[in-house]
Amino acid sequence: MLTLHDDPISGNGFKIRLLLAFMGTPYHYNAYDILKGETHTPEFLSTINPGGRIPVLELDDGRRLVESNAVLTYLAEGTSWIPSDPFTKAQMMSWLFWEQYSHEPNIATLRFWKHLPELSDVQKAQLLSKRSAGEAALALMEMQLSHTDWLVGNGPTLADIALYAYTHVAEEGDYDLSSYPAVQAWISRIAALPNYVSITDKDRD
Amino acid sequence: MLTLHDDPISGNGFKIRLLLAFMGTPYHYNAYDILKGETHTPEFLSTINPGGRIPVLELDDGRRLVESNAVLTYLAEGTSWIPSDPFTKAQMMSWLFWEQYSHEPNIATLRFWKHLPELSDVQKAQLLSKRSAGEAALALMEMQLSHTDWLVGNGPTLADIALYAYTHVAEEGDYDLSSYPAVQAWISRIAALPNYVSITDKDRD
Repeated sequence: MLTLHDDPISGNGFKIRLLLAFMGTPYHYNAYDILKGETHTPEFLSTINPGGRIPVLELDDGRRLVESNAVLTYLAEGTSWIPSDPFTKAQMMSWLFWEQYSHEPNIATLRFWKHLPELSDVQKAQLLSKRSAGEAALALMEMQLSHTDWLVGNGPTLADIALYAYTHVAEEGDYDLSSYPAVQAWISRIAALPNYVSITDKDRD
Repeated sequence: MLTLHDDPISGNGFKIRLLLAFMGTPYHYNAYDILKGETHTPEFLSTINPGGRIPVLELDDGRRLVESNAVLTYLAEGTSWIPSDPFTKAQMMSWLFWEQYSHEPNIATLRFWKHLPELSDVQKAQLLSKRSAGEAALALMEMQLSHTDWLVGNGPTLADIALYAYTHVAEEGDYDLSSYPAVQAWISRIAALPNYVSITDKDRD
């Protein structure tokens, strides 16, 4: 059986949990607390991921994969979560890379920083530019989603799962989603899909 | 024929130029100067990319694709630049996402900032943390490449092209590659591949 090494607060981990739920694939769940340094212990670094990050997908045979969006493409190969048309598939890939470069470092990071006891000077210096870049990312999604129900093609794909993960909890980083009505409608559309699970489903409490 | 909208100094653009050269695929080249704002003109935003970024690949029929690594996966579909084994392919995808999240924002950015007349306070505040994250990225590559000739599998893949682009010019951002001998050997290996072109091949001067 698959094992997911993850922290329940992670949106990157939630992408994988959500896809596995939609696909009806069972898996073991190993939880680590990033804020307690549990992904930087000598044991984690030597046996799970030398990069010190979650999520990590471990296969039956012990091989491991890192990078949430790469794990999504691996798990979804051959399913309708990846469009069969080459151009539509490439558009989906564009959203996945854009998510890691232009969305996650701004929207996920401001949410994560709310969990820290205090911000460093370097973090404080970036607050305004990250907020502005996060708003630009939401505006680009709004532009797309005011024309189409899903980010690419005619149905939900990995692009929707990957972008949903941190967008639907953006308000935890003080983003106001009421300015993005098409994004809000898309969030409701995803949450209504069969087998949907919530990001708090794996919380330890 | 394909058209690549690009700035010759862009390592993200160079990834695509290098793959097209390796594949022997001809293409039109439209050059823009980022530093002169040529990717933020009303015309560029309305006809090339509303995101205001290069590179953009334009197909024969006018459809356009953004995000350099997504363009690579589109162009290389069905070739040996993408491993056929599903797990090896997923490892390649991990490197592509890692490049955009952990490598490019540190190694490419410090190179790009050298081209600016002066740095903003926010940029100055990030110099040390970006340098440190860039060194960590190079160290992770060194760890892999001291065991294997290529980042994944037994031959060059898109992972090597994507990581090569900004790594081989990292010294322009004041990174010292002499501390990373396995990375240096890998750089020489890529530059020796048939049909290799250099990053300055499209310079306007």
